[in-house]
Amino acid sequence: MAVVAMWKCDRDDSMFDNKKDADAYDKMLELAESFTQFLEKHAAGISEQDAETIGLLLSKNKEQLIAACKGKPEVLLSLGEGDSEADSNVTELSAAG
Amino acid sequence: MAVVAMWKCDRDDSMFDNKKDADAYDKMLELAESFTQFLEKHAAGISEQDAETIGLLLSKNKEQLIAACKGKPEVLLSLGEGDSEADSNVTELSAAG
Repeated sequence: MAVVAMWKCDRDDSMFDNKKDADAYDKMLELAESFTQFLEKHAAGISEQDAETIGLLLSKNKEQLIAACKGKPEVLLSLGEGDSEADSNVTELSAAG
Repeated sequence: MAVVAMWKCDRDDSMFDNKKDADAYDKMLELAESFTQFLEKHAAGISEQDAETIGLLLSKNKEQLIAACKGKPEVLLSLGEGDSEADSNVTELSAAG
């Protein structure tokens, strides 16, 4: 038995066993929240649930967003193809949206 | 009377009186379409109309997206405040979404 240091992201109480991963997760959630607020403000009529889902989706793929905005929009189209890891980025929107 | 050169963006037949603006508009629409396809593929359940609206919104604000993704998420929150030009980026989503 031993005492093990853990790090908690207090945005959603996720636990991590190393600070680097916890910091990265916290930053991902912070960006997602900003995207969500941006969508709720500028895409009139979007549901809160859809704004949160899309905010997370955009934040999780920020490197691809940057590349697309810098002149490589095709990066967005190939995302997830032949890449099993990216499949986890498929997110179900609420039917109630 | 005179003959005046015009440029047409054949994505939506928009007309421009200079090539630079036409090119910029074409690139904006190309990025918007890529965002729309990305959302339709990865945000299961989103309506085609909402995906198009949000695609355009993201593309029109690509500089702010880049800044946000590079560590300044607060840029997304201040968009449109005290800036009459940015108000035109408020887009109505379809109620049918």
